[in-house]
Amino acid sequence: MLSASSAAATGVLVSSVSFAEPATAPPQTAHQYEIFELTLEGPSTGNPYVDQHLEAVFTLGSRSVNVEGFYDGSTTYKIRFMPDTPGDWSYTATSSFASPQKGAVACQPARAGVHGPIRVANQHHFAHADGTPYHPFGTTCYAWTHQGDALELQTLASLKTGPFNKIRMCIFPKSYQYNRAEPVYYPFQRPAGTPLTAPGDITRFDPAFWKHLEERIAQLRDLNIEADLILFHPYDRWGFASMPHEADERYLRYLIARLSAYSNVWWSLANEFDLMRAKTTADFTRLLHLTQQYDPYQHMRSIHYSRYMYDYASPAVTHASIQTYDFASAPAWLAAWKKPIVYDEIQYEGNIFSRWGNLSPDEMTRRFWLGVINGCYVTHGETFIDPKLSAEEAETQKLWWSHGGTLKGASPARIAFLRKVLETTTPLGLEPPENPYYLNAVSRVLPSPPNSVTYTPSDPPAAILYYLDFHQPERVNIVFSPNTTYTAELIDPWNMTITPIPGTFSGRANIKLAVKPYQALRLKRIMKS
Amino acid sequence: MLSASSAAATGVLVSSVSFAEPATAPPQTAHQYEIFELTLEGPSTGNPYVDQHLEAVFTLGSRSVNVEGFYDGSTTYKIRFMPDTPGDWSYTATSSFASPQKGAVACQPARAGVHGPIRVANQHHFAHADGTPYHPFGTTCYAWTHQGDALELQTLASLKTGPFNKIRMCIFPKSYQYNRAEPVYYPFQRPAGTPLTAPGDITRFDPAFWKHLEERIAQLRDLNIEADLILFHPYDRWGFASMPHEADERYLRYLIARLSAYSNVWWSLANEFDLMRAKTTADFTRLLHLTQQYDPYQHMRSIHYSRYMYDYASPAVTHASIQTYDFASAPAWLAAWKKPIVYDEIQYEGNIFSRWGNLSPDEMTRRFWLGVINGCYVTHGETFIDPKLSAEEAETQKLWWSHGGTLKGASPARIAFLRKVLETTTPLGLEPPENPYYLNAVSRVLPSPPNSVTYTPSDPPAAILYYLDFHQPERVNIVFSPNTTYTAELIDPWNMTITPIPGTFSGRANIKLAVKPYQALRLKRIMKS
Repeated sequence: MLSASSAAATGVLVSSVSFAEPATAPPQTAHQYEIFELTLEGPSTGNPYVDQHLEAVFTLGSRSVNVEGFYDGSTTYKIRFMPDTPGDWSYTATSSFASPQKGAVACQPARAGVHGPIRVANQHHFAHADGTPYHPFGTTCYAWTHQGDALELQTLASLKTGPFNKIRMCIFPKSYQYNRAEPVYYPFQRPAGTPLTAPGDITRFDPAFWKHLEERIAQLRDLNIEADLILFHPYDRWGFASMPHEADERYLRYLIARLSAYSNVWWSLANEFDLMRAKTTADFTRLLHLTQQYDPYQHMRSIHYSRYMYDYASPAVTHASIQTYDFASAPAWLAAWKKPIVYDEIQYEGNIFSRWGNLSPDEMTRRFWLGVINGCYVTHGETFIDPKLSAEEAETQKLWWSHGGTLKGASPARIAFLRKVLETTTPLGLEPPENPYYLNAVSRVLPSPPNSVTYTPSDPPAAILYYLDFHQPERVNIVFSPNTTYTAELIDPWNMTITPIPGTFSGRANIKLAVKPYQALRLKRIMKS
Repeated sequence: MLSASSAAATGVLVSSVSFAEPATAPPQTAHQYEIFELTLEGPSTGNPYVDQHLEAVFTLGSRSVNVEGFYDGSTTYKIRFMPDTPGDWSYTATSSFASPQKGAVACQPARAGVHGPIRVANQHHFAHADGTPYHPFGTTCYAWTHQGDALELQTLASLKTGPFNKIRMCIFPKSYQYNRAEPVYYPFQRPAGTPLTAPGDITRFDPAFWKHLEERIAQLRDLNIEADLILFHPYDRWGFASMPHEADERYLRYLIARLSAYSNVWWSLANEFDLMRAKTTADFTRLLHLTQQYDPYQHMRSIHYSRYMYDYASPAVTHASIQTYDFASAPAWLAAWKKPIVYDEIQYEGNIFSRWGNLSPDEMTRRFWLGVINGCYVTHGETFIDPKLSAEEAETQKLWWSHGGTLKGASPARIAFLRKVLETTTPLGLEPPENPYYLNAVSRVLPSPPNSVTYTPSDPPAAILYYLDFHQPERVNIVFSPNTTYTAELIDPWNMTITPIPGTFSGRANIKLAVKPYQALRLKRIMKS
């Protein structure tokens, strides 16, 4: 038995048509960048997770895409496919338990508002597959899908009104300070008597866990939020961080089979991989290469460290996912790695004792500006506890950084403002300062379409954005390219105001500023002869 | 003819007794750490600056100190000596123009308030020769002695009420932006017809220049301000930066002969030595070694760079004089160099366009705290212009950083407050954090007298000072050494308040803080069983 369905934007399967094997299935329809799903019936005896295998080849013209399927419990097997091109695709599904099945699927162009997965664009930046610019302004809720429906729905409501379009989240549950509760779902089945500190039967996945996770990923997708999935992490008391190699690989292939057809997933191979004592850097490189090998869509792929940087020049990663607040090094790293940089951990706004969790909102805002002005992207996190509680009581508090819930800080509004500033300055992303002497003080916008990163006086920037940090000059002196004229705006990142400076500027210009720190200046070209 | 005098604390010679040569001079008196001066008459023909030589050996018991003398114009030659030990010194003065002269000087103990020159104390810190702790809180007025009496006296008045106890100042005049005027005095004589761009006769010093400089150094001394004299610098249009080696050496010996008996001089061989194209690093090492060789008192001796650090591990320098605002590296540098570090240029509070001259007062205050908390010292500077002036008009403004005058910024009051906090926390200076994870967040005070830098649980610190920078924890958790009890105070570096936190703390303690960035916490041990 084989059935096919096309997942709507809500992630719910809307149609399922059965047909007799070994007949060819009647033509189906799908939409570009959405999930087309085949359902097969097969054996439930033995251990289908390891005994059985299924996959399909989808073909459009001379192009073929191979996708692996997965066992979903009972007698259900599934193959998911995300077509990236409209047209009449054909497929052949093969399995260890049935004869090959052929079918056809007519893929319609993307529906309004659907832009497809993220790609690297313009060397240091990102865009959706359809070319729509994408500037990641992420947040962090590591264990939000392990908190139960009430809190998880609250998190989604917070995300809906927040400024964030990417979220870092762990697949495995988390054991850490403030994270002592058991999760609602476990990734593997837990036979009766499994101790709390064991991973369960690591040869048998638990479909309930994965269906729940998929629902959350789909909900994020419908909010236009990328799910930056953390596949391994060190905050563990169940043994998920120290499984044998073959279990890691089985887990990796299973999750790619289940999740890669979701347009909004990213693969973060690990959080703080260098803190995972049971694995070496070479192990992670192997896992990155396996991800690269099995993912039909080449979703964004990186790995996050604590102290010892991964080799981000490696083709194994699509972008750097760094933990530091050294923004001065960004131009050199961009030049060396030739790929985008996301400052995925710059500490968190909050008030907890731990040094990484008590940044002021001003400092969080400042770090976002420093990252963006240096041609990179930055990820938010928040760790507030109620100061009236004792240390013991505080341990059970829900903190956005891990549990989700509601946002309490003052930085998200400023991050929303910065996102608006960036989006209205350039669709393409900022390039870092050319002159390291002016590091952090000037960033110029790409003046021409993607793949151009060269500036010459004859190719003046369309816009220039300065962030003045703790500097407070009473004026800036700028020598503009010949025959260009610019307007100027003074931007207050904290008070979220954009104030036009009267007049236009060209040639050798003095622009007066407020003698006040933490201001920004935006110049836009209005004329080029 | 030989005469002797003892310079009073005002720097004015109070007595001068002549006696016939080759007789032994009648016994004279001097005071510890003050100037004892012998005046000789000699030839004025030829070029006495290069033709003649004079020196003296001062002896107390088995100890001898050699000092060179100098020609002071007309028929006057002088030998200056600063006795560091009370007692009955004897001396023999020899010269190229007269037979040896012998004499005796009874050195009285230091007068009240006179503590002698600065020495390195306790490895990373400083103290006066008599052991009085000295924490440098310096400022910068590079060319203040070249501005004419009116402005120079205003500078002295500003210094008198300010928080600064060290000043960085150039011996040579300065040519740079905002510094286009000719100086009042030149170090060398300028025969008629000397072009404005020439140094004059570099074989003949101009006594008027040196007497003026000495007066200013003495005035600083009487304000308890160390004169951190910059002997060479690159901001030059007269040729002082590119004299031949023999002229550099003659200049160095002449200034040591004239100035080293002033207790408050420091030798900064250069400002931004790496920007001086006519000299190599080896040239400066040679000049440092010559300074080390000729200075009888071993005043503080260093060299300041722009981009390329001098080798501060070298015994040629007594301390590091660095230009950076990288405070995170301080503990490693202190450990490697095993000497004090002064952050002598961390940019300036101000509003000029140049990036180095427009820090907010908040950021200047923050940098002082970061330097001090990391066991180092920091130097202030200020560059404010009137924003109502045009760029051309601003070029003739007087800026504290170079000309002196009056202080306009908001940071000096906060620097005064920090100095008070440090002085009331420890007479000995702070040691950097032991655990680099807590870098910038915790600094412990030496619990015992100089030369002890070891902490053990059985040797708990007498005080602990935290600076929280942009962190805002609602509490800190501290585990105190067994059998110790501490008081706690919350310090606001900007509002300059010290607020006791009720109670005492011992064992495993939680101390509640304000959820507010840029606060400090001071703990003082009140009991140790």
